[in-house]
Amino acid sequence: MTVEEAAEALSLPLFRLEGLLERGTVAERDGYLRFKKSVAGKERGTAYFEEAGDVVRGFPKIRRILMLDPGVPNRFEGEVVVEEKMNGYNVRIARAGSETVALTRGGVRCPYTEHWVHRLMGEEAFSDLPELVICGEMVGPDNPYVVSDAYGVESVQFFVFDVRRKGSNEPLPVDERRELVEGYGLSGVRELARVGAGETDEIREIVEDLDSRGREGVVMKDPAMDLDPVKYTTSSGNCKDLRYAFRYFQEYGADFIYPRAVREGFQAVEFEADMDERANRLGRAILEPLAETAVAGRKGERILEPVSVRVFDLSVVEEFERHLRSTGVDAIFREPEELDDGSYRVRIDRVRQGTDDKTANLLAGGFW
Amino acid sequence: MTVEEAAEALSLPLFRLEGLLERGTVAERDGYLRFKKSVAGKERGTAYFEEAGDVVRGFPKIRRILMLDPGVPNRFEGEVVVEEKMNGYNVRIARAGSETVALTRGGVRCPYTEHWVHRLMGEEAFSDLPELVICGEMVGPDNPYVVSDAYGVESVQFFVFDVRRKGSNEPLPVDERRELVEGYGLSGVRELARVGAGETDEIREIVEDLDSRGREGVVMKDPAMDLDPVKYTTSSGNCKDLRYAFRYFQEYGADFIYPRAVREGFQAVEFEADMDERANRLGRAILEPLAETAVAGRKGERILEPVSVRVFDLSVVEEFERHLRSTGVDAIFREPEELDDGSYRVRIDRVRQGTDDKTANLLAGGFW
Repeated sequence: MTVEEAAEALSLPLFRLEGLLERGTVAERDGYLRFKKSVAGKERGTAYFEEAGDVVRGFPKIRRILMLDPGVPNRFEGEVVVEEKMNGYNVRIARAGSETVALTRGGVRCPYTEHWVHRLMGEEAFSDLPELVICGEMVGPDNPYVVSDAYGVESVQFFVFDVRRKGSNEPLPVDERRELVEGYGLSGVRELARVGAGETDEIREIVEDLDSRGREGVVMKDPAMDLDPVKYTTSSGNCKDLRYAFRYFQEYGADFIYPRAVREGFQAVEFEADMDERANRLGRAILEPLAETAVAGRKGERILEPVSVRVFDLSVVEEFERHLRSTGVDAIFREPEELDDGSYRVRIDRVRQGTDDKTANLLAGGFW
Repeated sequence: MTVEEAAEALSLPLFRLEGLLERGTVAERDGYLRFKKSVAGKERGTAYFEEAGDVVRGFPKIRRILMLDPGVPNRFEGEVVVEEKMNGYNVRIARAGSETVALTRGGVRCPYTEHWVHRLMGEEAFSDLPELVICGEMVGPDNPYVVSDAYGVESVQFFVFDVRRKGSNEPLPVDERRELVEGYGLSGVRELARVGAGETDEIREIVEDLDSRGREGVVMKDPAMDLDPVKYTTSSGNCKDLRYAFRYFQEYGADFIYPRAVREGFQAVEFEADMDERANRLGRAILEPLAETAVAGRKGERILEPVSVRVFDLSVVEEFERHLRSTGVDAIFREPEELDDGSYRVRIDRVRQGTDDKTANLLAGGFW
């Protein structure tokens, strides 16, 4: 690659890209550049594939409202599509030259994700759609990033929520996207309703139903995708996040707690929720995982996050292990178990060294 | 003043002080310099009085443990003095030349505090102790900074917890300090117990008792003050702070919540607390004030923090109003009410503009 070619493909002045590379805001690895932050009009996670010359834009942040009313009527006109927001990790699939690549939110190619994409869709997936990026959520228990058991998925499954044009990042209209996705035999996220922009009571009922089933929330979309989508989450989604964050409090607690606390407060008011029940749920989501971690630390246990992967080829595990290490993740890979269908499940313990150290220090009477 | 004199009094190289002044880390106002941060071996709040040439060192941070056992035995030997940690604002009183000045934690002279110090102790207070700094907590309901009703104080009262040597910041031993304080007819913070460093069960009982009465916590001290004191707070203190922080969530929520959540988790484990009760208390301390703020915002009420001052001379109120404004505080002063003893109470509403704006924006469907 020449930096000139990359700059041209990214529509950036050469000196600008050189500056970003120098400061490390744009990083080069394994034949592609990636944007580690949103900068110069490119989303975080934007990738440029050197050999193929392809640009895959980052997935744009979906903004969040805390009040359905008047949040929804203020931002939409006419009809609103309410889709389920699923709890997994964000993946973009696209063709780069003669390969089908899968990128995580940050724009990193993940060999485990690619293994599943190839498995689910074939190595040549989307070779007939070189100008599109398929955006979706990888969901399920055999998931090294975000474990979720809420969806009845056995290992991992990919749910498409967006299809975008490669260079411009323009999204397809909702119906056009659904048709394309179905035509490929893929799953899309569930469409829960189409309502008028003023019908927030209906959306609220949907949210309450999702909440009661431990689901994460909704994304509201303009059918034509001319307006930006907006997200809204359930209380149980917020509390699940907090449970996770306070189990590994040193890694996540500080970043997770404040915005979720405020969301809970405003939702409790809009939904006229039972304050006692909400307070208890929120308090438990903070205290119980902290206590669990402190008790584990007292017993001398290491603070680890157990996850698993399932593969049809053990070389993927080796590759994934190298990959995790290269992204700075410390993890212990256990012995593979062979499953009935000839695949392998490998349990992985992510080492939460920050929480482990901090817990040990606090338990030893250390200063906060 | 010359900068040379100040540098000499502060034992700093001239160029160092000049640099700090230039960057605004040390600020000059009304005839004194103050350290806005801990830097160059001087605590935040350290002040240098230009005319008198006096240095009053900042009050050193007292560090916090989250586990009484082994936190206390690890840091102390022999006897430990357990004193009450009171919930008010930290004040240092010292002589500067021919004046008795009162400094807040940040090293700012506060005219309201000085009014009370002069009222309680006379204008010449401590004129016979020019080398000492009297450190204590201003506590009570007529308090523009930290309102507390827990102590049966009618307006405001000053409780001494430390006496230190001016230039070196060396503290007097506990008994010597108590004798001096009593000799001046002043109140000290309560001494709750003297226990062996290993007797953490006794300290825990004290904390549980304070907790049940809505008190803030304890400070543990070496009788000789050779070792650094250590603090520990009650759950009700933590939750009171959170109630305050989430009423004015935009100003305080993010900074307050995380450390207090972790404290609650570790305390619940050490105290083998009823998790349901603790979770409920914690959840309520977050949700209820948020809901209160959201509901007030919905009614179109401005988010204000009501405080009050009581003075024996109305000119102090004017001076205090100018003072608050000069420190960037926006507040509405109400009409003085004359009390039976000829003093005046003035209600002040501190404008919490950040929370007010954010609440209005979120209620209008704004993005988080």
